Amino acid sequence: MTTWLDVPADHPFGIDTLPYGVFSTRDAPQRRRVGVRIGDHVLDASAVAAIGRDAGMVGDGPDLATVWETPSLNSFLALGRPAWTIAREWLTEILTDDVHRAGVEPHLIPLDRVTVHLPIDVADYVDFYASEHHASNVGQIFRPDNAALPPNWKHLPIGYHGRAGTVVVTGTDVVRPSGQRKGPQDPAPVFGPSIRLDIEAELGYVVGGATAIGSRVSVDEAVDHIFGVVILNDWSARDIQAWEYVPLGPFLGKSFATSVSAWVTPLDALREARVSLPGQADPPVLPYLQGDAFGLDVHVEVSLNGAVVSRPEHAGMYWSPAQMLAHLTVNGASLRDGDLFGSGTISGPTVGSRGSLLELTWNGTRPLTLPDGSSRGFLEDGDTVTMTAWAPGPGGSRIGLGEVTGTIRPAVPLEA
Amino acid sequence: MTTWLDVPADHPFGIDTLPYGVFSTRDAPQRRRVGVRIGDHVLDASAVAAIGRDAGMVGDGPDLATVWETPSLNSFLALGRPAWTIAREWLTEILTDDVHRAGVEPHLIPLDRVTVHLPIDVADYVDFYASEHHASNVGQIFRPDNAALPPNWKHLPIGYHGRAGTVVVTGTDVVRPSGQRKGPQDPAPVFGPSIRLDIEAELGYVVGGATAIGSRVSVDEAVDHIFGVVILNDWSARDIQAWEYVPLGPFLGKSFATSVSAWVTPLDALREARVSLPGQADPPVLPYLQGDAFGLDVHVEVSLNGAVVSRPEHAGMYWSPAQMLAHLTVNGASLRDGDLFGSGTISGPTVGSRGSLLELTWNGTRPLTLPDGSSRGFLEDGDTVTMTAWAPGPGGSRIGLGEVTGTIRPAVPLEA
Repeated sequence: MTTWLDVPADHPFGIDTLPYGVFSTRDAPQRRRVGVRIGDHVLDASAVAAIGRDAGMVGDGPDLATVWETPSLNSFLALGRPAWTIAREWLTEILTDDVHRAGVEPHLIPLDRVTVHLPIDVADYVDFYASEHHASNVGQIFRPDNAALPPNWKHLPIGYHGRAGTVVVTGTDVVRPSGQRKGPQDPAPVFGPSIRLDIEAELGYVVGGATAIGSRVSVDEAVDHIFGVVILNDWSARDIQAWEYVPLGPFLGKSFATSVSAWVTPLDALREARVSLPGQADPPVLPYLQGDAFGLDVHVEVSLNGAVVSRPEHAGMYWSPAQMLAHLTVNGASLRDGDLFGSGTISGPTVGSRGSLLELTWNGTRPLTLPDGSSRGFLEDGDTVTMTAWAPGPGGSRIGLGEVTGTIRPAVPLEA
Repeated sequence: MTTWLDVPADHPFGIDTLPYGVFSTRDAPQRRRVGVRIGDHVLDASAVAAIGRDAGMVGDGPDLATVWETPSLNSFLALGRPAWTIAREWLTEILTDDVHRAGVEPHLIPLDRVTVHLPIDVADYVDFYASEHHASNVGQIFRPDNAALPPNWKHLPIGYHGRAGTVVVTGTDVVRPSGQRKGPQDPAPVFGPSIRLDIEAELGYVVGGATAIGSRVSVDEAVDHIFGVVILNDWSARDIQAWEYVPLGPFLGKSFATSVSAWVTPLDALREARVSLPGQADPPVLPYLQGDAFGLDVHVEVSLNGAVVSRPEHAGMYWSPAQMLAHLTVNGASLRDGDLFGSGTISGPTVGSRGSLLELTWNGTRPLTLPDGSSRGFLEDGDTVTMTAWAPGPGGSRIGLGEVTGTIRPAVPLEA
């Protein structure tokens, strides 16, 4: 499949990717609307949908020109899987069939002339813990006297709710959080800026097709509710987290910021990336977690101040996104359009594939040396962390998942 | 202060209460709008605000007729403390000064002719753990080999994020959740309907006056962001919770439903109910948790199938709502209009003041006997739990906080 646009065959945002986002332009900064990225352009989706509607190209379905002229993807997410598929097929047609070129071309805006925004109004945000290597590393670091994996870990995808209101789009600065910490030798906790500020490299799954309270989504039905994927950096203050998290879980150590990429890659763009899970034979999982529980072969790269520090492989995750969604709803919890759930830190068996500094530096005891000669146990003020990702596409193409980046700003002192 | 309405002096919804909610009427079921309860009537708030506006009664502030003609309190919450105070003063004036009677009376609707709805679009929901007796009881039951209170408990108000999308209004049935559980002697977890379905009697604090990410709300500033109070029942499946909650906290054991009362009692109605905290001298709390951290003398009553089973006293809570909000934001987490945070289960030192069946029956080992001769360790299908609450008002009046009630429906089987 080729587009009439001048996009190199190996471009990560070629015709097989077509991710959705929300953008505005300088001449109308308040007019946030849905865009589709192709090459180094953003297609003004509502504008072309209006042309299609007026030309009778689209049937009796929902009016995408209206749905896409909104400041988040949530209205589109509400339409559900059949509408998502039709929309993608239509976008593919108008970008490949030369007959549409004259109509569409005026609505392609160069990437450097748009501002991207948070693509979804996040409803509920849940973070899972699906990498065996990550959970095992964290267990050894935080709970050295216990087994590396908690007893429940291979029976259910452990997850918890995070703060939806502090999910921010790539490029947003992150203010170093302050809070309580207490070292094992400290007689009492102290208050101050976090001294163990960390990252977590994850994928985030964007949910649509709301469900009713009391109902469930099975593993096989999950693909009807997983619209797409973002890269997600779950910033973590390890010192705050370590002191607060027993018994009710992480709270302020995570709630100050969670960054996501601007472009939501449709699950339909990741068909070639579906892989088998690495294994759930011992122990076998309960029937409600069985079904078409594919993994995703997404390659992540984590850079700190421009130097690659890790290459986590999502294909190695123990639990699949469909299993996470089935678990999340098995108690009857409803889904809302704009729900977001994270995979948890993606860490592999090698040091170079660990998705957090906690693991890469073994809680700061084995600092990284950066190209400028400086060393890092955890993040310093001014540090910039960038995560990128890609997956295999049809015919050897690459599906780009974009990037999520953020720079650490100094802590805000308490007022006197 | 007396109203021209025929409301008995000891009515819990007298002129000193004036709580806000969202209602509709049978002739316009889609027209959900803000109402104010007085006696056994609901004042159509946007209708009277429109009269006030057209009569020039209100100044240059926000147009409350528009703000209140919306299906949640969120737009009103966004206005912040000064507007809340002005609105309450104006409502008090039109309900006490007889000159307004003719204009206002047509907009009073008998309570039995309205349907109440969830009063807020819940943004983020956080649940705290602020009762020392509750935390100590739970610690003894769930972690008998450890100290009753975790080491961090008296240093910070422990909290975690819950599921905002499953907060429901009083009267909503609750479907018994299913999930994994594993007794200490079971070789592997089993799946099925929860057999330890429980309640938690709490107050919920409704937040308005959104703040920016990276900023903080101090203890003294918290009253500008706590709009009001609801009664909250944090339904809990103890068997699911016990198996899942280590290490990341409660998830499916809590996320299936959280019920709140329909009427949000303004914090301004609870001035007479402010009390000192029972004590935070040993250990002293860190400076960011100090300030005007009043407690609230709210009396809660919990009934099971009509029989009172507990009378929890909110005045005994160790941590105050202002401290909870200061802690929640000390890391820079932003607030959104419609954020909701719960006190955690309100339990006192006596058996009869414990706010959960877990504690009342000591994890089912000391069942309650109901008036019909049946006994309960935990909830059975068909059981109805009702919580009511009141607080002292001016001149010996009672401020009613309404009620939150819900009935347990049978679990939904997994499809074959």
